[in-house]
Amino acid sequence: MRKFKPVTTNQVQVQGGFWGERLGLNRCVTLPIEYQQCKMTGRIDAFKLDWKPGSPDPPHIFWDSDVAKWIEAACYSITTHPDARLEKKIDYVVKLISEAQQEDGYLNVHFTVVEPEKRWSNLRDQHELYCAGHLMEAAVAHLEATGRREFLDVMCRYADYIVSVFGKGRKQKRGYPGHEEIELALVKLYRATGRRSYLDLAKFFVDERGRSPHYFDREARERGEDPVRFGGHDYFQAHLPVREQETAEGHAVRACYLYAGMADVAAETGDRELLVACRRMWKNITEKRMYIHGGIGSSRFGERFTIDYDLPNEEAYAETCAAIALVFFAHRMVQMDTDRQYSDVMERALYNCIPAGVSLDGTRFFYDNYLASFPGSHRFTGQKPPVRQEWFGCACCPPNLARIFASLGGYVYTQTTRSIFVHLFIDSRTTVQLAGQQVTVTQKTEYPWDEDVQFEISPSVPVTFTLAIRVPGWCEAYLASVNGRPVKSKARLRKGYLYLRRQWQKGDRIRLHLTMTVKRVESHPSIRQNAGRVALQRGPVVYCLEEKDNGKGLNDLVLAKDSVLVGKKHSSGVLSGIPIVRGKAKRRESVSWKGTLYRPSRTRYQACKITAIPYFIWANRGEGEMVVWIGEVV
Amino acid sequence: MRKFKPVTTNQVQVQGGFWGERLGLNRCVTLPIEYQQCKMTGRIDAFKLDWKPGSPDPPHIFWDSDVAKWIEAACYSITTHPDARLEKKIDYVVKLISEAQQEDGYLNVHFTVVEPEKRWSNLRDQHELYCAGHLMEAAVAHLEATGRREFLDVMCRYADYIVSVFGKGRKQKRGYPGHEEIELALVKLYRATGRRSYLDLAKFFVDERGRSPHYFDREARERGEDPVRFGGHDYFQAHLPVREQETAEGHAVRACYLYAGMADVAAETGDRELLVACRRMWKNITEKRMYIHGGIGSSRFGERFTIDYDLPNEEAYAETCAAIALVFFAHRMVQMDTDRQYSDVMERALYNCIPAGVSLDGTRFFYDNYLASFPGSHRFTGQKPPVRQEWFGCACCPPNLARIFASLGGYVYTQTTRSIFVHLFIDSRTTVQLAGQQVTVTQKTEYPWDEDVQFEISPSVPVTFTLAIRVPGWCEAYLASVNGRPVKSKARLRKGYLYLRRQWQKGDRIRLHLTMTVKRVESHPSIRQNAGRVALQRGPVVYCLEEKDNGKGLNDLVLAKDSVLVGKKHSSGVLSGIPIVRGKAKRRESVSWKGTLYRPSRTRYQACKITAIPYFIWANRGEGEMVVWIGEVV
Repeated sequence: MRKFKPVTTNQVQVQGGFWGERLGLNRCVTLPIEYQQCKMTGRIDAFKLDWKPGSPDPPHIFWDSDVAKWIEAACYSITTHPDARLEKKIDYVVKLISEAQQEDGYLNVHFTVVEPEKRWSNLRDQHELYCAGHLMEAAVAHLEATGRREFLDVMCRYADYIVSVFGKGRKQKRGYPGHEEIELALVKLYRATGRRSYLDLAKFFVDERGRSPHYFDREARERGEDPVRFGGHDYFQAHLPVREQETAEGHAVRACYLYAGMADVAAETGDRELLVACRRMWKNITEKRMYIHGGIGSSRFGERFTIDYDLPNEEAYAETCAAIALVFFAHRMVQMDTDRQYSDVMERALYNCIPAGVSLDGTRFFYDNYLASFPGSHRFTGQKPPVRQEWFGCACCPPNLARIFASLGGYVYTQTTRSIFVHLFIDSRTTVQLAGQQVTVTQKTEYPWDEDVQFEISPSVPVTFTLAIRVPGWCEAYLASVNGRPVKSKARLRKGYLYLRRQWQKGDRIRLHLTMTVKRVESHPSIRQNAGRVALQRGPVVYCLEEKDNGKGLNDLVLAKDSVLVGKKHSSGVLSGIPIVRGKAKRRESVSWKGTLYRPSRTRYQACKITAIPYFIWANRGEGEMVVWIGEVV
Repeated sequence: MRKFKPVTTNQVQVQGGFWGERLGLNRCVTLPIEYQQCKMTGRIDAFKLDWKPGSPDPPHIFWDSDVAKWIEAACYSITTHPDARLEKKIDYVVKLISEAQQEDGYLNVHFTVVEPEKRWSNLRDQHELYCAGHLMEAAVAHLEATGRREFLDVMCRYADYIVSVFGKGRKQKRGYPGHEEIELALVKLYRATGRRSYLDLAKFFVDERGRSPHYFDREARERGEDPVRFGGHDYFQAHLPVREQETAEGHAVRACYLYAGMADVAAETGDRELLVACRRMWKNITEKRMYIHGGIGSSRFGERFTIDYDLPNEEAYAETCAAIALVFFAHRMVQMDTDRQYSDVMERALYNCIPAGVSLDGTRFFYDNYLASFPGSHRFTGQKPPVRQEWFGCACCPPNLARIFASLGGYVYTQTTRSIFVHLFIDSRTTVQLAGQQVTVTQKTEYPWDEDVQFEISPSVPVTFTLAIRVPGWCEAYLASVNGRPVKSKARLRKGYLYLRRQWQKGDRIRLHLTMTVKRVESHPSIRQNAGRVALQRGPVVYCLEEKDNGKGLNDLVLAKDSVLVGKKHSSGVLSGIPIVRGKAKRRESVSWKGTLYRPSRTRYQACKITAIPYFIWANRGEGEMVVWIGEVV
């Protein structure tokens, strides 16, 4: 069912523009910093297996995955930007990992040196299969980056061992991971090696999930524990068999890793029922449980989905990893159905929640992504401070950011033998095979700050194929032209993609103009937290108000109904070149309140102006209030 | 400094009206239920000291206090409403308690049968002195109710023992309770017995608090623990000596019990500095950290104060006990200064947060008192469900409600030898000594539903004294008359009290008319959670919207600016006789949202009507949405 394969990361050179800058920073600043952190915190050296019982700082159950994600990110990086020093670092770590593999193929630091007797004894909580999955992904990326199979072979040995441990055989475990991830990794490994057993195991993990009698409970009893439910089985998406699940439940990262894996299995096996289950989850998330910035998992209690339309702003969790996981899921779905409902969400997360996860200088990270912040009170709620951190004890987000950025080229296009689909507007260059010919597709754009995207199509010889370009859902007015001739677009539009089929000549140019007015966006009335409020959006970019530009008391600003909101580029500082939104508003007067907390209402408002900046830039100019959803005159 | 002594509970017969009904329910339904719960859960039988190590359900460290509060409440009840069966129950429990006293005077179930070796080893966390305090209060109430000293004597022995353990002597502990309460109890015991050592110990506890080196840390080290701070010393109001504290910090119940104790010590010792510290705390709480319903302690993490103006509605904690503790504090302050800033807050809590703590039928209780509720999401936040419960594992609130209700008569008046002060409007009758004569003061009123309060003053012989009546802060227009002759009130008003000095004759009548229009109340602009919203208040009663009357989507209702809000009495059901507020509003249209979560704003509103009911009645007619703060047209 996977009709549309991605043009892979190594084929797409991201160049200038918005992403050129950010990916450069990712490569030159973030990746080295993350290596440093993994080194300093002992995550890398842990693979030497020299931790001894009684020593401090035992290797943690998910350390392996942090290192794996760093390798994966670094491999993507050298794919597009060869770097001998970085490759040496990768090789060093890969060697350490390889040497940590046990005789039987097993490879997990914690369960080799800290609790060897507990191997596979607690799939529910212990992240063994999760770590294995990340290592597999890293190994596939390593093969693609270097062409060398040594890491892949190590991970195949591990995978083969896992295949022997899990299954329906009498001596096998009918278990599955508490933290999903290995499902999608096994499909990657299958695609890299052609070994069917990996795909079969992925399918096994997907299908066993949530069956009765419940594996997690049985396993808990075997450990001598009462099968108390850590947040209930829904926390692990194991409350029902996945095909019977109606809504996206539990830990949001786990959920979307699972759904991505389900989509992968469906894609490879043609399992329609599984695809239908994926669509149901997609619909539930994107129609009822997703923040405007593309974040998901609104509660920090369990980092999880809660109920439909429950999307608090100050208390938002919206873990960076969860938004990334949603992009993984979307990316799988768009490979089966070229529908902008998937790529629009990919874009929503990529320009809002995800880039907010890292500071503009690439050195600090957000784990949770609030949609409103009023400094001070978080100290009493257990929330993380509204300031990006250098690192985390649970450091999943930073290397996840690094790997999605480093592989971003792989999200731009999908193709068949005779068609190519443009999902993202990224200044880049790629050369692909279409209708048997080499075709170079170049995008020139300052998107999302500018409204224009220029495509140049250069086949080696004139050749007929279809180029389909996404028209974003946010865009109400656009113009497309081929070599200066306007495209009559209505008829050519299908599921949000503009289909251009013709014989393409070297140097053909397409211009896409996407009108970017500043829009007020309202949310579904059932999102009680946004009642009476609108968000500002320009193109795919969601804006916010910061105290820095608007003073304190952001909740007391009310947008005037008739105010034209204008986005004009800023000239200096970190906002240089970025459209800043300005407009008229009212501010509640706050005089003569001394000694009074409540009084008969005589609220008055004064005219004022507001300045909004892109959401993802917030908290880069010091600490202060921030809101995404702004009061509006009724 | 205590110039004004309360007319005590046993002197004031609450009769009909609002409180007559509620106190009857408290007496006939709540008190028996709470006895039953204490019995069923083993709290009462625990005093038999027959729990053995290894048995299940060890007596909990604060069980003693639950039973003590029930005794105290029951004693108040028989003071005003003699009841032989209830007295028998009290005597039974008092006997059990007395028999649980140890040779040396010690009296605590947990630390006698469960962890005897740990007596006084962890004042920070273990509630020993807190339990002692509640037992002392119960013993004083028992003396007042029965005239018998047996329980008082038991508690004096315990108090004497505590006096021997704590102090500055070389072999004494310089500690103080992690959960305050004993301070105010010791002053009660001092007043009941005249024994100076109790007052001195109360003062000692107050003054030792927060000194360096820090007792809690020293004590933790002695237990072999790292003095990790459970929420920091401010959680226990022990971050600084109390006289140096600037703001109300930490656990709100503990805080206000402490402040009440400080005020008591100041009152008895004339310690001005301590009084100034009390005033500072009072100011900080009531000007910056109190909900409109009189609840305090906005965060459920630590049941505590957070920062100024941080008063979330859905996430409000506002423990019932904390509002009660605030009334205790207010009641102490008004005994030193007849200023309505204290009695207004007493009234605010008594008509809003506190009565919300118990269902209209007297059988179920709220621990936390939300100011907005949208069913469903609490399951994912660790909040308690928005439904009153039969009982709690930590059952402090139900017996606290019972004792404040049963003793409510004691909050109505204070007096000197020649003056009497009316703080609350409660249908009641009292006979006091004024200027050497017996004077009966009767209040007839349906307050807070009706605007009129009738006083009848009947001295045995004509006598001159001052009667000062509080004019509530919420009231902008009132009329007072004596025997039908209007009182020119401006000149007679001092700190919110109307001073009437004259020679009173038998049958003199005062009529006070307090105009109760329905008011929109706004909150300080720094309370970000209420931006753009108003609350409705009629008299002292804060109103709310419930789904039952207004449908779902309460956050999408917006009050029209020009709407006249009318309070009219309801004719049937649980709301019978209660003014219901109605007015015009707009409701956001919620059509054609299928499949859409965010869209360009085209918000439209439809005219509608709203119905508001008194806040304290919420959640008595099934589960549903509720808001106190309502959107208003800008």
